[in-house]
Amino acid sequence: MELEVHLLAVTPQAEKVIEEAGRTCYLSFHRQGPESDRRFIRMLIERGHESVLEHATASFRIRGGSRSFTHQLVRHRLASYSQQSQRYVDEQNFQWVEPPGIGDHPEARAVFSDFMNQARETYRRLQAMGILNEDARYVLPNAVCSEIVVSANFREWRHILRLRGSRKAQWEIRRMAAEILRILKREAPSVFYDLDTGDRQGAAKEFRAPVDGA
Amino acid sequence: MELEVHLLAVTPQAEKVIEEAGRTCYLSFHRQGPESDRRFIRMLIERGHESVLEHATASFRIRGGSRSFTHQLVRHRLASYSQQSQRYVDEQNFQWVEPPGIGDHPEARAVFSDFMNQARETYRRLQAMGILNEDARYVLPNAVCSEIVVSANFREWRHILRLRGSRKAQWEIRRMAAEILRILKREAPSVFYDLDTGDRQGAAKEFRAPVDGA
Amino acid sequence: MELEVHLLAVTPQAEKVIEEAGRTCYLSFHRQGPESDRRFIRMLIERGHESVLEHATASFRIRGGSRSFTHQLVRHRLASYSQQSQRYVDEQNFQWVEPPGIGDHPEARAVFSDFMNQARETYRRLQAMGILNEDARYVLPNAVCSEIVVSANFREWRHILRLRGSRKAQWEIRRMAAEILRILKREAPSVFYDLDTGDRQGAAKEFRAPVDGA
Amino acid sequence: MELEVHLLAVTPQAEKVIEEAGRTCYLSFHRQGPESDRRFIRMLIERGHESVLEHATASFRIRGGSRSFTHQLVRHRLASYSQQSQRYVDEQNFQWVEPPGIGDHPEARAVFSDFMNQARETYRRLQAMGILNEDARYVLPNAVCSEIVVSANFREWRHILRLRGSRKAQWEIRRMAAEILRILKREAPSVFYDLDTGDRQGAAKEFRAPVDGA
Repeated sequence: MELEVHLLAVTPQAEKVIEEAGRTCYLSFHRQGPESDRRFIRMLIERGHESVLEHATASFRIRGGSRSFTHQLVRHRLASYSQQSQRYVDEQNFQWVEPPGIGDHPEARAVFSDFMNQARETYRRLQAMGILNEDARYVLPNAVCSEIVVSANFREWRHILRLRGSRKAQWEIRRMAAEILRILKREAPSVFYDLDTGDRQGAAKEFRAPVDGA
Repeated sequence: MELEVHLLAVTPQAEKVIEEAGRTCYLSFHRQGPESDRRFIRMLIERGHESVLEHATASFRIRGGSRSFTHQLVRHRLASYSQQSQRYVDEQNFQWVEPPGIGDHPEARAVFSDFMNQARETYRRLQAMGILNEDARYVLPNAVCSEIVVSANFREWRHILRLRGSRKAQWEIRRMAAEILRILKREAPSVFYDLDTGDRQGAAKEFRAPVDGA
Repeated sequence: MELEVHLLAVTPQAEKVIEEAGRTCYLSFHRQGPESDRRFIRMLIERGHESVLEHATASFRIRGGSRSFTHQLVRHRLASYSQQSQRYVDEQNFQWVEPPGIGDHPEARAVFSDFMNQARETYRRLQAMGILNEDARYVLPNAVCSEIVVSANFREWRHILRLRGSRKAQWEIRRMAAEILRILKREAPSVFYDLDTGDRQGAAKEFRAPVDGA
Repeated sequence: MELEVHLLAVTPQAEKVIEEAGRTCYLSFHRQGPESDRRFIRMLIERGHESVLEHATASFRIRGGSRSFTHQLVRHRLASYSQQSQRYVDEQNFQWVEPPGIGDHPEARAVFSDFMNQARETYRRLQAMGILNEDARYVLPNAVCSEIVVSANFREWRHILRLRGSRKAQWEIRRMAAEILRILKREAPSVFYDLDTGDRQGAAKEFRAPVDGA
């Protein structure tokens, strides 16, 4: 399976809500009109008044990301998370993510693939011996997929996308950033107008799909 | 004018979104069905797993609140605010809030009313002398109305409503809590099922409307 | 009285703690030596890795600030506050802050001063009629002093000082920023090395002291 | 090696600072005296005014914890973290944590130990093929040790210790909670007076040490 990003929820008429909220500061409601939200939001961003963007939020479901990726993602503290628990979920049929740097190297790929199968086998053997899932999971590699739902407001999404969409970020979280930016540009084009996917298309190109555990 | 609370935005199908997010932890999507969200959400609350409630948010516009009230409100740090700026808005026609404890006392009411008119007069005189609005506002009393938009997620709204709806809270913010709870019970009855307005109806009864500055 | 900023607490050997914490990311403890913390911290700031600065904190007591000022200050949500409560404290002998723009204008100053005395008189009259302090305070002007203790980590102090030390900020909070920066430059010179007080000395010069309520 | 918790920094005279800050709300500084901080802090906790506890903070270095543990820990968002990076640190000599449920079961222990050695071998083989550390790390199991520094204020530590010291928490993070509580009870006995280690001694007893990777 590929890394999948699904929009789960977004503030309806988000840009209108942001304009409505932001005009409270100046009591300038009389300046509203068709497309006034676009100009207003760009003005906010240019002046650095990004706090107003916090009144709109978006939630995404992310499937096919590794535990390396989720451990990075949850470091963003101004967001909300619900993540597949390795304590409660039976991982005997886990799926995994293959880094492109490994997938492009046939010998490395074979070593990696063998090891992931051994990991699954070891997990199952420990389960069969009566070891609890919460302890058996200590053998699960970083590559194992972990589903996660993340919600954040638009100001924080701008921050996350800038940071995690950059060339310094790892390929997996850059892929997430590219997908989320694509969706948010559709939902709120003015809020994300100055963030481009050029760099992220690079990320997308070098990206390889997670591999089914079977 | 009375204290007014308007719902500006809320996560669409909020309870369904919460169920969708929360089932990620256990990968228990197969248990979804008609009304399964209600049972799921009550289970979350009973077990104290309130973090899942963060995936839904609501934004409100509050008009007719005093600066005493807004200074209390903005102390809640897990929320977003856009407030009428006394630096930028000309306050020469400000409106004010009359505390019920003063409104019920004819002599006090007259003293209060005279003073609020003096405050407006003084503000205008300072403006006429060329004093900037941002400095003239130092004479504005706490009673002066200040419009504010506030957004928070449902977990935080539960926290705010419990704290600010209690008898220990001041009457103005209790009135806000009663209004917001009434609206949120309509939008997401399961998320707020265990918070009752009984105590808050008391708050509402003892509440008196803000008085027009004119 | 003048605006007073007192350092209440600061992380001991703050720059050493930051270095200790930051080297964890790279397990580069062997690179520590005399003055290595200075170079390490400047490198963090230049690369934008400011999260490491969060491991040191400072707390300040601020006296002689107005309620206009505290209402601005508490909007910073990544900090902790304990503020003099107008609900619980008897304000019959309140002190107030005189904006320099008013203090420099003799006629305005007289109008302002008369009004502040009327405010105190009105507050006392309402108290004498049996009105509770929490309601009588609705007549208290923004200029009334309010004591506050604020704690934040060094990363957040950098953010607050940049924002509130700028020419766009109001004079009162700029004065606070100048004082806090002066103290923090002494306590942790490397952490604040790139923030200069040049602009803030301007703020300090144009600042006038709060006026005793008597 | 065993799980190690080292106090890296703590607010000096933390309980006195909390009293100093908290008395600001009531301007009740005249009530300070020998041991008044103890009574004041217990009163704050009994009344639920825990925000005052935020003015003191403590930082800890934690060694010998697994990546399962750190992934749980960093979900606490009102804290600051600096963690050993698997992208930048060469993990060819990693150490690992052995869950007690596995260590107590000789057959499981052998399976686990063999697998961890295979994991290290696989990591090294991938490195030898030219795979970057940031990609080779996808084979690293949850059991691999990861050093982390964490800072939080005392209010948040109370929250974390209650949640992670309970029987529902996993053994590794309970062990951390027991150690941190022991240290904080020494540094600030009044702030943590009502949290007991009884339950956590259980956690400590059932705890087994991490195993050296060699």
